[in-house]
Amino acid sequence: MSTPGTGQAPNPGIIFETFQAYHRTAAIKAAIELELFTEIGKGSHTAEAIAKGIGASVRGTRILCDFLTIMGLLSKEGDQYSNGLEASVFLDKSSHGYFGGAARFLLDPKLTAPFQDLAKIVRDGRTTLPDEGTVSYDNPIWVEFAEAMAPMQFMASLEIAGIVGGEGEMEVLDIAAGHGLFGIAIAQRNPAARVTALDWAHVLDVATENAKKMGVADRHTALPGSAFTVDFGGPYDVVLMTNFYHHFDMATCDGLTEKIFAALKPGGRCVTLDFVPNEDRVSPPAAASFAMTMLGSTASGDAYTFKEYDAMFSKAGFVASEKHALEKSAGTLIVSAKA
Amino acid sequence: MSTPGTGQAPNPGIIFETFQAYHRTAAIKAAIELELFTEIGKGSHTAEAIAKGIGASVRGTRILCDFLTIMGLLSKEGDQYSNGLEASVFLDKSSHGYFGGAARFLLDPKLTAPFQDLAKIVRDGRTTLPDEGTVSYDNPIWVEFAEAMAPMQFMASLEIAGIVGGEGEMEVLDIAAGHGLFGIAIAQRNPAARVTALDWAHVLDVATENAKKMGVADRHTALPGSAFTVDFGGPYDVVLMTNFYHHFDMATCDGLTEKIFAALKPGGRCVTLDFVPNEDRVSPPAAASFAMTMLGSTASGDAYTFKEYDAMFSKAGFVASEKHALEKSAGTLIVSAKA
Repeated sequence: MSTPGTGQAPNPGIIFETFQAYHRTAAIKAAIELELFTEIGKGSHTAEAIAKGIGASVRGTRILCDFLTIMGLLSKEGDQYSNGLEASVFLDKSSHGYFGGAARFLLDPKLTAPFQDLAKIVRDGRTTLPDEGTVSYDNPIWVEFAEAMAPMQFMASLEIAGIVGGEGEMEVLDIAAGHGLFGIAIAQRNPAARVTALDWAHVLDVATENAKKMGVADRHTALPGSAFTVDFGGPYDVVLMTNFYHHFDMATCDGLTEKIFAALKPGGRCVTLDFVPNEDRVSPPAAASFAMTMLGSTASGDAYTFKEYDAMFSKAGFVASEKHALEKSAGTLIVSAKA
Repeated sequence: MSTPGTGQAPNPGIIFETFQAYHRTAAIKAAIELELFTEIGKGSHTAEAIAKGIGASVRGTRILCDFLTIMGLLSKEGDQYSNGLEASVFLDKSSHGYFGGAARFLLDPKLTAPFQDLAKIVRDGRTTLPDEGTVSYDNPIWVEFAEAMAPMQFMASLEIAGIVGGEGEMEVLDIAAGHGLFGIAIAQRNPAARVTALDWAHVLDVATENAKKMGVADRHTALPGSAFTVDFGGPYDVVLMTNFYHHFDMATCDGLTEKIFAALKPGGRCVTLDFVPNEDRVSPPAAASFAMTMLGSTASGDAYTFKEYDAMFSKAGFVASEKHALEKSAGTLIVSAKA
């Protein structure tokens, strides 16, 4: 079968592969749970040796290892499997870069369940989760986020602190702090920075614990509550808005941005980290795909373009917004200045 | 972060993308259910027009269309979406090549559920489904298979009939016939061929119906029962074994092959269609990945290599096995001859 005029034959393979894409998710999740990458890192290379090390069947281990090889996470020479570069850095528990625990949050059944009936979500235009979805009041999922996602965002927090940390006295408000790493990294880099971390109380416990571990507890204050209702205090030099705007519709974002503007000193900056697709909304893939995560898990969230963010910040009174591509994150940093 | 000696920075994106791969499955399933590709084929191109046509929200439709564009199933120019080549041929209901209904079988919750806990399957070495998994006695999933998968395998059935159909009197046994297309295509091509289709009775109803529709009912006989226990009758010139061996362990396959050998005339051929990976078991991707489907859904199935098939057929008494790559299927055809 070929299409007239193009001479190109359609490839049904892409459709079959898409039907089965969920196998890839299942495979990486299983391999992390079984600590398969860690076992290979220890020196087990055949299916038999790996199976013995992780307490699993040879049939299951061999098929899983072959599948992970096809996916590019392992390599195979003869009957010997080795971790690929990404698996050895990010999925072997003995690596400093390990963030396999992120699967616990990203693949929590509460987050994946809505995708079982995406047609209904597309019809209704909102998640099948109740109320506001994942951002409903005090949703315990964010405690899990704070615990599980910190390692995945650690490198990005250092990169961002390098961009906004500066020198000298600096009051920082870390909105929806979660694990708190973004504020903590600034406090570590700038010994004169003080961070106020805002989040629901149970989530803040994680940030406070991280601030202690990282030696900045004396300059890290917890402000429990909702970003929409709590008094921000201040005024601040920097307000951090990391991975938060995307959960809400633009009217809600506008309201929050006005509140941030009011809490900033003259010359202060709002620093936004978010998934920011190009104006075409289909590139780059990682940022643009994030809109689907918001469709599945929220009532009205989205992946906003820079043009939309720029308009939002202008409307709230900011004089300029600048975007910075990040090396350590699929997110984009937007720094918006108050006159 | 870079790995000493390689100078290459690891890309966490591949891991994040793999965690979220299940979104791709959800998206194609939703788009088929909503008949989104069909609506675009009718001439709706903006999110607003498509949403109206399929009775869905604009937010959901726009995000789904952008995601399908990122996946390569749609294209986007400005705010206009169009079907990609594969979507227009295989996923638009008005196309003769439409096989979107395959999602009903491939993504039946009975088949996808085991992948929710793949770690357990890898530990145990077998599906979490009871007994033999999908091939347990008279599993109703195969009626759905027969109904849903026929359009996806139609082109391959024509290609295979071209290879094995021949001319003149020919008795064909179609084992695990399912939709029956493989036998029916031979009967259509060769007016002197007679087909005996073997499958569980409920599944055979689908094959019999298809034989009627395709005008070969007078040369198409139903033989209800299990391939392992029913008397094959015969002798036959050709025995078709399409997508069946992969469900079983090699000892079971051996037994079946001996039974087939005994039912063939001298000079007869066993014709196997299956997913046959290279000896490395990790290429080509579609055939090699099929082992994962068997791990998830059966007690001991696999994707066997040609070397394994060749040894199995030799052991049963066949003098030679030849493989044929197919253009219209990710499967390989193996033709094994009795002296």
